This record gives sequence, structure tokens and C-alpha cells, in this order.
Amino acid sequence: MIDCGEGTQIRMQQMHLKATRLGHVFISHLHGDHCFGLIGMISTFGMLKRTADLHIHAHPDLERFLSPLLNYFCTDISFKVEFHPQNPSVHELVYEDRSVEVYSIPLKHRVPSCGFLFKEKPGLPHIKRDMIDFYKVPNFKIGKIKQGEDFITDEGEIIPNAVFTTPPTPSISYAYCSDTAFCEKIIPIIEGVDLLYHEATFTEEEATRARQTMHSTARQAAEIAKKANVKKLIIGHYSARYRNKTVLLKEAKEVFENTELADDMKCFEF
Amino acid sequence: MIDCGEGTQIRMQQMHLKATRLGHVFISHLHGDHCFGLIGMISTFGMLKRTADLHIHAHPDLERFLSPLLNYFCTDISFKVEFHPQNPSVHELVYEDRSVEVYSIPLKHRVPSCGFLFKEKPGLPHIKRDMIDFYKVPNFKIGKIKQGEDFITDEGEIIPNAVFTTPPTPSISYAYCSDTAFCEKIIPIIEGVDLLYHEATFTEEEATRARQTMHSTARQAAEIAKKANVKKLIIGHYSARYRNKTVLLKEAKEVFENTELADDMKCFEF
Repeated sequence: MIDCGEGTQIRMQQMHLKATRLGHVFISHLHGDHCFGLIGMISTFGMLKRTADLHIHAHPDLERFLSPLLNYFCTDISFKVEFHPQNPSVHELVYEDRSVEVYSIPLKHRVPSCGFLFKEKPGLPHIKRDMIDFYKVPNFKIGKIKQGEDFITDEGEIIPNAVFTTPPTPSISYAYCSDTAFCEKIIPIIEGVDLLYHEATFTEEEATRARQTMHSTARQAAEIAKKANVKKLIIGHYSARYRNKTVLLKEAKEVFENTELADDMKCFEF
Repeated sequence: MIDCGEGTQIRMQQMHLKATRLGHVFISHLHGDHCFGLIGMISTFGMLKRTADLHIHAHPDLERFLSPLLNYFCTDISFKVEFHPQNPSVHELVYEDRSVEVYSIPLKHRVPSCGFLFKEKPGLPHIKRDMIDFYKVPNFKIGKIKQGEDFITDEGEIIPNAVFTTPPTPSISYAYCSDTAFCEKIIPIIEGVDLLYHEATFTEEEATRARQTMHSTARQAAEIAKKANVKKLIIGHYSARYRNKTVLLKEAKEVFENTELADDMKCFEF
């Protein structure tokens, strides 16, 4: 989960998301709309008798003010909340497991803020079932072939690995950048990602306000997407003044065509 | 406002409730579902440039854990959050203005908890417009007549006050009792109220669980309503296990017919 504003647990219920599948929460910065939902969500997980640890990656201040709340409201929860203090001003690996790496992306906002880059690790090659059958490869050898080994027949013939495999599904990458002013420093970090979420709080008409509040315009978000050669851009975090979001979409599309609007509970496949 | 769970500010927006009309928040007890919405609501009021003080009546612990949050997240708000620490174990006047008195109602729960009794103050009598016209009472005298004075004509004739007035609209009273186990001590306090909200977390089938968690059954809520001779009962705070709430309503109605189910955003006139 990236960020956890007020009402996140309610949305999770509405979307039938399994709480048990959530292991790590990455908090971009300590403004209320990005972290006020944590205490309620943790509290509810406690009532649901969660047992797995919950890991929170955030600016060190989060632990300082969340701990007293946990000690007061969540004394009897059956799992551990583990804080991983993180320096938002450096680009570094903040989390890794066998399928994904997560890097911080230093951003430019009124308070220390960072985005997150999710890079899927390269997968294993796919097995050609027909060739496995043809050479009568025993099941216990298939794992080795996936790892790159050749196959030796009972007659001692070496069948090269390439006969049995096709390349793995290409790894995908996702970058989340919010909240931030226009910041070209992030471009090398997010270069070529499959999907970029970038905040677009205002249109260019409100460029001054964007600069003052250290937010981006839709056009600026699109410029970042274009310069970083990303495959697709999603914009969001709109100011409440835009009841009709198409003005933001139009502005972004003028610079970067493959843009879509984020919306509550909207899902994107990539 | 009574209690302020997570998402309260979102509901306020959905119901087009004016934030500026909210002056006092009464918190029954410090469980998350009754107070986690405060920080987000206050934070949003700050962004909306509220200027009027916001008064919070609650157990003293609330200030202890909310103050650090306000100091961190709401440094630039343009209004004052005033805490009124309150002892939930005594029945006393906690707030009063020219139209209403609010009393605490000590309840029985796992943590110190109290309900609130809202008593409208008696209004002024209504003026009979036709008699005012008939006696040619000047406008500046009408206030005095509302206060109970007689009227003296230019000829010196005394016209008794009763000629010009009809009795004021009867004052109404509302009692909110949540969260609480069955607790007959509250009966003298809520005696005869126009509307009683009483929690009904379980049905009688779960009476043991109700006792353990210090909640009430629908039947118990209705018994309180009956013994206190209230005019109408609203039950709420249902356990998530009841997807169909009519079982709770049915159980309550068997004891106290004039019962209704509370629901999100439902309004009751009384």
C-alpha cells in the first residue's frame, strides 16, 4: 500500500481487498491526507485478529506520533507494527523481497516527501510443454531447466536449454510521485517505467498557486512523463476546485498522449 | 456533533453540512470508532480557513494524545481547538448556551464512557398577530410581551399578556447512550426524553458476548427505553455480523414498539 489517508480501511472493505495480503505500507510524506488512515486501519486489523507483522516505511516522525496512539488504542492487538524509518531525501532501496524491489524517489514538497519506484525482479523463463514431452524430461528436472540448465538424455545427448524455454514475461515497473512540485531530478530514476503516477493538483492557469504550494500542474506531470519516456501516465491528487477533471486530462494529453485520470477505486492493468 | 469516527468529515461533505455551523463536539469515550475522525476533520477545517473556535468535550486523555498531532499537522490553522476535559463518571452539566443544556450520562463500558442528554431550554410564547393588530401594539413593545409583560393602551387600559400570546412550542430532549452495557442507572437521567439513541450491538442470542464486551442487546436497549418512558427509541452501533438489521429491530420492537434503526446519513425528525 502506498499512503493511507482517512477512510482507507473503508475503501478496502468496499473493494473486498484482503487485509491479510497487506504486508508493507509506504508513506510518501507526513501530511494528513497521506497518513491519517493508518491508526484506524491498524486498529481494525487488530479486531480482525491479524497475526502477521505490518511493516510501515516512512519518515521517522511517523513512529514518534503513531506509537503513543498504538499504545493507547491498540494495546491488545495480536500483531506487531514494525516501523522502518526512512530518509526521504535520498534515492535508495527501501524494501526487497523475492519478486520486487522498492526504491525511494526524493521529491520536492513543503515537507520532506518521497515517491516510490516498484521494480519487479526478472522472472524465470517459460517452459515449452511440447518439448518437455518430446524429450520425456522428468518433472523433477523442470526446475533446473527454468534456472538455465541444459538437459542430458538417457543416451547422453545434450539438449540445450533454449530448446525448452521461451524468455520470461518482461518485468514491469511502477513509479508513484506525490506530492511534488515540478522536479526534473526524478527523471533518471523513473526513466522508462511502464506506469507513472504523478500528481497534477492544478492546471497551468493556477501555475503560480502550484509553485507556492509546491504541487504540479497537469502539464508539468506530462512533461515529466515525456522526458522520462514512461509508457503510461496516470494523474491524480486534483484540487477540489476541479469538479470536471477533463480539463486536467486535456492539458496533460497535449504533452503526453497516453495519460489517464486516477479516480477513487479505479483499477489500472499494465 | 456527538462522536467523530473515521470518515466523519467525508460524510459531512456528502450531506452538505456546513462546517462553520459546528461549534462543539462531544466525545463519549476514547475508542477509535468514536474519535479517530477528529484529526482529519480539524485539519480540513484549517484548510477551509475556519476562524471560530472549535470546542471538544471529552475525557482528559483526548487532549493528551490529540495535542501532539495538532502541533505536528495543524500548525497553521486559523482557529483554536479548545479542550474541555470531562469526567465521564459523573452526571453533570457539561455545556449550556441560550437554547440548550447538555448533561453527561455516565455509562458502563470497557473504558470510561458517557452519553449526552440534550435539553432544549423553554422557548418564548408565540405572538397572536391579530390581537397585536387589534390593539395597535407598537413593534417595539412586542419583545416585552414575549417576555410576559401586559400591554397598556393609550387610554390606560391594561390588556393582560395572555390576550396576545399562546404557549411556546414544547421543548424537546434527546439522549445519546453509546457505548454501554445494560445500565439501569441511566433511567432517571433520561426519563421521558423525546428521543433516545441507545446502542444495540447484539441480539439476545449473543447476550453473553454483549456482557463480555460491555455492549447491549436490542432487547436491553428497548427495556431501557420502556422503563424510562421515552417517546421514541433509535438503535444503532450494530455488530458487523448482522448484515440484515431487521432481526435487531424486531427484537427491540417486542419490548418497545416505537423503535427505529439508525443508518448512515439517516435523518430523524422529532
